[in-house]
Amino acid sequence: MPGSVTTPVGFQAAGVAAGLKKSGKPDLGLLISTSACTSAAMYTPNAAAAAPVIVSREETARGRIRGIVVNSGSANACTGERGLDDARLMTRLAAGQTGLKPDQMAVASTGVIGVPLEMNLVELGIAAVAEALSAAGGPAFAQAIRTTDSVDKEGAVALKLAAGTVHIGACAKGAGMIAPNMATLLAFVTTDAGAPSELLNAMLRDAVAGSFNAVTVDGDMSTNDCVFLLANGQSGVELEPGSPDSRLFAEGLAAVLKSLALKMVADGEGATKVIELRAAGAAGASEAIALCRSIATSPLVRTAFFGQDANWGRIMASAGAALAGESRLAADIYYEDICVAAGGAAAELPAGRLAKIMEQQEISVTLDTHRGEAEHTIYFCDLTHDYVTLNSEYST
Amino acid sequence: MPGSVTTPVGFQAAGVAAGLKKSGKPDLGLLISTSACTSAAMYTPNAAAAAPVIVSREETARGRIRGIVVNSGSANACTGERGLDDARLMTRLAAGQTGLKPDQMAVASTGVIGVPLEMNLVELGIAAVAEALSAAGGPAFAQAIRTTDSVDKEGAVALKLAAGTVHIGACAKGAGMIAPNMATLLAFVTTDAGAPSELLNAMLRDAVAGSFNAVTVDGDMSTNDCVFLLANGQSGVELEPGSPDSRLFAEGLAAVLKSLALKMVADGEGATKVIELRAAGAAGASEAIALCRSIATSPLVRTAFFGQDANWGRIMASAGAALAGESRLAADIYYEDICVAAGGAAAELPAGRLAKIMEQQEISVTLDTHRGEAEHTIYFCDLTHDYVTLNSEYST
Repeated sequence: MPGSVTTPVGFQAAGVAAGLKKSGKPDLGLLISTSACTSAAMYTPNAAAAAPVIVSREETARGRIRGIVVNSGSANACTGERGLDDARLMTRLAAGQTGLKPDQMAVASTGVIGVPLEMNLVELGIAAVAEALSAAGGPAFAQAIRTTDSVDKEGAVALKLAAGTVHIGACAKGAGMIAPNMATLLAFVTTDAGAPSELLNAMLRDAVAGSFNAVTVDGDMSTNDCVFLLANGQSGVELEPGSPDSRLFAEGLAAVLKSLALKMVADGEGATKVIELRAAGAAGASEAIALCRSIATSPLVRTAFFGQDANWGRIMASAGAALAGESRLAADIYYEDICVAAGGAAAELPAGRLAKIMEQQEISVTLDTHRGEAEHTIYFCDLTHDYVTLNSEYST
Repeated sequence: MPGSVTTPVGFQAAGVAAGLKKSGKPDLGLLISTSACTSAAMYTPNAAAAAPVIVSREETARGRIRGIVVNSGSANACTGERGLDDARLMTRLAAGQTGLKPDQMAVASTGVIGVPLEMNLVELGIAAVAEALSAAGGPAFAQAIRTTDSVDKEGAVALKLAAGTVHIGACAKGAGMIAPNMATLLAFVTTDAGAPSELLNAMLRDAVAGSFNAVTVDGDMSTNDCVFLLANGQSGVELEPGSPDSRLFAEGLAAVLKSLALKMVADGEGATKVIELRAAGAAGASEAIALCRSIATSPLVRTAFFGQDANWGRIMASAGAALAGESRLAADIYYEDICVAAGGAAAELPAGRLAKIMEQQEISVTLDTHRGEAEHTIYFCDLTHDYVTLNSEYST
């Protein structure tokens, strides 16, 4: 259903233009709960993780995040000690404006790497965005976190559980530097359900595995990826580990995050197509994942989809690369329900229909390697002229 | 020095247009030694290795290859049992035309994957190319192995050894589907030195490590990669393991292959720049290689070079991805001799000179992660509109 991070009861948000983006577009967001929260978070494993990631990971680790301040326009990554000081100052300023403690306030940033934040603008912006906080501010918050995104990515769901109705709201940004290992840049999830932090973390990890970690735009792992889940319990519903309500909630969470992840791929920089690739018949889970990632990040595979060329040979070659050292790969490949290769060689094709499929905006591809029972699915986009344009002209 | 596979004494080659390429350009090559050879070969580890790779690997394993028949226009990959039969038939036909035994004749193919060879054209072509064999045929052979290559890639060297003068000649093709694991598509090396097959194999492996395995165009590992080294001893010089002459020869071989590998990157599909990336200060050899490959295959890094944008943050992010799980990466980055990042954060820059460097066709970049003593160097090219055009319009 339509909605945002302020759809769940008791959350307020806002977004303002603090002047960090040269374009003058919104670039500073604030999200808080009006009451105490439990929280979960996941962060990029990148060794060059940005200052806000380091600060949020280390200083809000108690699972009690109640607010998040976020800026776009600058990633505050590769900014050294000064960047860490700036990130900590952002949490203190935002906490001060909202009456929270600094360790209840997480911080996130996105934008160009290596350029320090203009903290005078950030400080004024935080005062303004705190002033603007409202229960209708979710969409403004979503707008403030955009960089090369061409559309806002947000959504919500209402879940009728045995113990009552709860809501989940979420927004995300991400259009480039998206790899299947915290492939998100930034995502913020709120709920008016209550739950212990450990349960939230477990549910978040599962939901991310099937959503942000199952998509790729360019295979580049960001320095700034993070996902936050805040639960304030204002619905009166408390989730317990293992309960039927918890399972339903986990499904709802997974559905919301998956819909955002798919929007991310569809809005991948320059993308014209989304490809759903299922690697079936793999010898194990890690092999299935390796097959998916090899194919989904292959420039040759991705440019072929842009060219609407059913060049399954490139998929086979990329699968073979993932299985290097093995021999005589005899895989089947399907575009939608059409078998284009059987046993590793070309299949007889029905004329015409394949060309129609290649024109689709969403194409489902299945690779079956007949090596075992494991499978994995990944979503990726094509590699286009617009990707090259965006990333060769998007300058520091 | 200029030269080709027929520069060494006692080699003959030719290239003809057999009609496999729609363009009518040369597409069938033949290379033989006029006397018995020892040989070495390396093949793609791709699990979907093409039929000619399987046939050459299995049926010429004795180290006695004396001739090679090669076609462009079709890779004879993903062609099933029929492809294997066709590859074997190519060796038998070429052997028959030249008086060799089939297990002395290797076969290689390059071109579109998944389309069977038109064997009637191949058979006529083999007869014609055998007829055309000559000691001046090296350049024609080099032409016949091109696909999207825009220039021939060949060279030779004369080495004055203690035991006498020997020659090494070589040619290669490769412009796309080039990854640092047999990053070659096809390469053919001849010498009039003599050497045991084991010594040739060892020298070839070392030379490939510093040449074809140290370059990448798009990170896509081919189904058809192979490198052949044929030694006929007609110079009268016999190389012994461990001798000073052998070491000099190994150096000459490495130099010839490296020059071809660099031509391959410079002619990488759509490339406008060659970047030499040295990852220094790595904790071990495999870490140094992983750093190089992560950065050299990053679409964001590669598009930034196309845009002449000194966006070192993308290099840092990609290095951090290669070191995922580590923290606080404090690397230095240099473009040529200019330090753009020190200790993980932006360095003070001399105005002007950096922009000049980014305009260069060849740019040397150094990453120093200060984690240890290991280092590795890789050569890669930028990701450009022409790459996207070539690979979205180059159809099956």
